[in-house]
Amino acid sequence: MNPTEDDITSWFKQQSRYAVDRVPIGIGDDMAQIRLDDGGSVLITTDMLLEGTHFDLKTATLEQVGYKAVAVSLSDCAAMATIPAGAVVAVALPPDFGEQQLKRLHAGIALAADKYDCPLVGGDITAWGHDHPLAVSVAMLSRAGPTPPIRRDGARDTDVIGVTGTLGGSGRRKHLEFEPRVQEALELARTVTVHAMIDISDGLSTDLNRICCQSGVGAMIEASAIPISEEAKVRTDPLTAALNEGEDFELLFTLAPGQWEALRESWSDSVPITPVGKATATPGMRIVMPDGHVTRLAPAGYEHLGHRA
Amino acid sequence: MNPTEDDITSWFKQQSRYAVDRVPIGIGDDMAQIRLDDGGSVLITTDMLLEGTHFDLKTATLEQVGYKAVAVSLSDCAAMATIPAGAVVAVALPPDFGEQQLKRLHAGIALAADKYDCPLVGGDITAWGHDHPLAVSVAMLSRAGPTPPIRRDGARDTDVIGVTGTLGGSGRRKHLEFEPRVQEALELARTVTVHAMIDISDGLSTDLNRICCQSGVGAMIEASAIPISEEAKVRTDPLTAALNEGEDFELLFTLAPGQWEALRESWSDSVPITPVGKATATPGMRIVMPDGHVTRLAPAGYEHLGHRA
Repeated sequence: MNPTEDDITSWFKQQSRYAVDRVPIGIGDDMAQIRLDDGGSVLITTDMLLEGTHFDLKTATLEQVGYKAVAVSLSDCAAMATIPAGAVVAVALPPDFGEQQLKRLHAGIALAADKYDCPLVGGDITAWGHDHPLAVSVAMLSRAGPTPPIRRDGARDTDVIGVTGTLGGSGRRKHLEFEPRVQEALELARTVTVHAMIDISDGLSTDLNRICCQSGVGAMIEASAIPISEEAKVRTDPLTAALNEGEDFELLFTLAPGQWEALRESWSDSVPITPVGKATATPGMRIVMPDGHVTRLAPAGYEHLGHRA
Repeated sequence: MNPTEDDITSWFKQQSRYAVDRVPIGIGDDMAQIRLDDGGSVLITTDMLLEGTHFDLKTATLEQVGYKAVAVSLSDCAAMATIPAGAVVAVALPPDFGEQQLKRLHAGIALAADKYDCPLVGGDITAWGHDHPLAVSVAMLSRAGPTPPIRRDGARDTDVIGVTGTLGGSGRRKHLEFEPRVQEALELARTVTVHAMIDISDGLSTDLNRICCQSGVGAMIEASAIPISEEAKVRTDPLTAALNEGEDFELLFTLAPGQWEALRESWSDSVPITPVGKATATPGMRIVMPDGHVTRLAPAGYEHLGHRA
């Protein structure tokens, strides 16, 4: 069996030998944190979008591709409740990619960058020598928000598990036009003590599993509590869509149960927040189905290396 | 006629509307500088290497590809006399790329990162859905060295122009194994007042043109002074190879003529430094050929968009 992306990430993490005072947060979270010599620190993330995997130019515009490339990294900034500080973009262009197409791609990049106040500060442009698809790679910096960066590994076995927005069905349109939850994450961090957070890029089941594994807890999800998107509700199996489809780019977070009411009372209404279950001392993820029976919840979201031979 | 990479870069730069106190150095230099809220700042660069363009897996090992991907960004850190602080790597993998191949690529990445004390802190791994080539995208952070970051636009019309190392013939082997001039750049910055600096990635003629255009000066190069590499000396036209081939990853810098002797006296011998000409008040680049006649020197180095239709 081939290793998953998480297996590979763990292996890379083991190879990394830098002291925690230089790299307070290393490989394996939504962003890494690097301590600078002046005592300050900065966070960094990178994401590469590939034509045919993350977007299809038959159905997506170049503006949407540019927007998505930046928004995916903005969502990583949100996942740690940090403030975007700047981005660079490297692109590999098909040989027939013209100046007007590049400007349309840039328009989408600039739209996301400007909307979230994240300066586009540099890049690298190269054309493939032969007919290969478009690739867009973004690296983004952020700085700490109202709290230290919120990591994946801080969930406690008594926590409530919450999500923003609605889940599933993103592949139709939302994955190209989603609003990264940068402001919502900062509001969460300002309002309550969030123990662990991640953005749902690969599906609730897979991203919750990351929080559980890294925090050393399990989870019990209530199927009937999951906020299923309108797009997913019309599916044959809306629950599976909401659990596994990925690219929701909503926040998945945990906090002490006593804090949920405080959060709900002060929460601005624009984006809903919903409790979907509880962390457990028993490892592994389980789900209470609508008929009341409890079953194992497998991490069955998007696997980046899923296409491999 | 299609725009060059520099045309596109200029257009992107014009679109950028961020205040200089947030982005002291924006698009158009070797790295961008971002001011953080705590008063500190950080620099960032990105480079994407493409199979078939920047490396050929028929002649390069995966270790060499990984090394080069990081070394190219380290060379950008050197170009501004800054100190590498951390890197992230995003890769797009061919469908048949296996775990052992990924570990070999990683070994090369780690070799360069460790040698230059630049922590590898994160990444993104995705497999192409179909048979497309390997792409490796690196983003690297650095912090200021002994001086503020040395830019491309500070050359004065009385400056001496110098280079480190030897030029030309890099395509045979050096482009995969070169030593980015990180320490040499810091030594330069400590020893003298460097007015402008760039790393020679696209060829002396093209990268000198960047310094000239951005500084508002011209240049007069002495052909007989150019340190031509052993690999280029056996070519039909060694001078053209040294001027235009690119991927030398040596430093090209300018300083007041009175400083050259001070630099030469204190310079450690490991990597040679050579004066190759002078900046001029007259715009444009010219070259004194070995027979004494003066001709125009065109920026004829590597063009990233040269393969475009």
